[in-house]
Amino acid sequence: MASRPPAPRPRSGAKPGATREQIERRKRFERARRASLRGAADAPIVMYGWHTVTAALRNPARRVRKLLATENAARRLADEGFTHKPEVVRPGAIAERLLPDAVHQGLYLETDLLPSPQIEDLPAKGVVLVLDRITDPHNVGAIFRSAAAFAATAIVTTQRHSPDATGALAKAASGALEWVPLVNVQNLARALAALKASGFLVVGLDSSGEADFAALPLRSPLALVLGAEGKGLRQLTKESCDHVARIDLPGEIKSLNVSNAAALALYVASRLLSGA
Amino acid sequence: MASRPPAPRPRSGAKPGATREQIERRKRFERARRASLRGAADAPIVMYGWHTVTAALRNPARRVRKLLATENAARRLADEGFTHKPEVVRPGAIAERLLPDAVHQGLYLETDLLPSPQIEDLPAKGVVLVLDRITDPHNVGAIFRSAAAFAATAIVTTQRHSPDATGALAKAASGALEWVPLVNVQNLARALAALKASGFLVVGLDSSGEADFAALPLRSPLALVLGAEGKGLRQLTKESCDHVARIDLPGEIKSLNVSNAAALALYVASRLLSGA
Repeated sequence: MASRPPAPRPRSGAKPGATREQIERRKRFERARRASLRGAADAPIVMYGWHTVTAALRNPARRVRKLLATENAARRLADEGFTHKPEVVRPGAIAERLLPDAVHQGLYLETDLLPSPQIEDLPAKGVVLVLDRITDPHNVGAIFRSAAAFAATAIVTTQRHSPDATGALAKAASGALEWVPLVNVQNLARALAALKASGFLVVGLDSSGEADFAALPLRSPLALVLGAEGKGLRQLTKESCDHVARIDLPGEIKSLNVSNAAALALYVASRLLSGA
Repeated sequence: MASRPPAPRPRSGAKPGATREQIERRKRFERARRASLRGAADAPIVMYGWHTVTAALRNPARRVRKLLATENAARRLADEGFTHKPEVVRPGAIAERLLPDAVHQGLYLETDLLPSPQIEDLPAKGVVLVLDRITDPHNVGAIFRSAAAFAATAIVTTQRHSPDATGALAKAASGALEWVPLVNVQNLARALAALKASGFLVVGLDSSGEADFAALPLRSPLALVLGAEGKGLRQLTKESCDHVARIDLPGEIKSLNVSNAAALALYVASRLLSGA
């Protein structure tokens, strides 16, 4: 089908002579790429909640597309020196744009994704968190918050198999999206290779890890790799690490929620690296 | 209105001569008490997900009211030696009983609350976590999981202003509800006084705390008190603590998600108490 030379090239960009499997693979990739470009270019990032929205408003890199506030929230914004002019609405007008359990505290913002740096451009210092297919937005949001609390250099994640930096994730991040650069990569193993090439020590955390994390000879710059809820690190990810380590747990349950593991690893790393 | 002596006592149990405010307060209390009794006596606790349900099935104290499994899950249960006979159903029959985002992995269980020990009966050893109005079920579930991972003695919380140990909380706990006793109390300040009387050192964690948690002279038995998301510890709770301490954070955000803070405090305490 795809091997008729005079026919125009299919819109998927497949070359004449390609196998059906190659074409299908390419089509899937193109669909994903276009969807991700559409997401970045058109769909707004939604934020709600006092901490989250005010942190975004304080960030000069954030473009405000739409800002809704209740009367109280608008007054509080003005009192705290914000010069933005929100559209003042009833609380219900915000609630109806969000999931029923969203605690919006009278503030709603539509904005754009912040630009994603290239992995090669990251400064080779401090701690970088790498997320291997962590899909729960509450967990990823809490990881952003801990990363900001421990002054991490960046968070690296794959564009696919990751939640968008919007809504519940932004709320759980509690303003941390403004502080921690998010590096989106196509391929995690290649990203880890790039980090190693920049001088990072790459340590994966997995409950099946052979080394005790707190006993590792950690050094800066350090990349900490965290795996998906329930599944842990993928095999190729493990193979791309300098060490795969576990956090020793004395109790009956041998693994932590991934955002808890991230907070703990950041704490241990920041103590060890600062010599405390 | 409530001061007519010959009239029958109101059903709320208010005494004649009580003020309207006292009657209203008593009515609210009675409604809450009856609702909580109804909950304990009648409404089933719902669990789903492989880890959560199989941990419950392994616990001899759990009464199985209803057990649904998909064909695959039923086979896996038998393969792993469970003698329970689930009702085998289509995945859709489980999904329609749960919220749309619930990952049930083919297992659904209805059971009862485990009996709640009295605070006076807790052994005076190890670490007890005390939760001051933490309402998010994902956070409370993750705290249970970390408590089990660090072999905490118990979790203490108020019956009101706490989520039920069911559904999303049970899933986030990932089996930990079977390992960590939950002590339900009416009044947190009285509970902290009872823990002190039993010999516990009571340490509250709050981002405004004056002491550095990692530098405190911790000792066993230890009660760690954690406050609500965004609000922190209530004033009366703080006043009931021996120390109120903060976790030092070097970054731009000065507080962690409460389940992350709990994991970190448990880690620090377990290292300090074990002399590591």
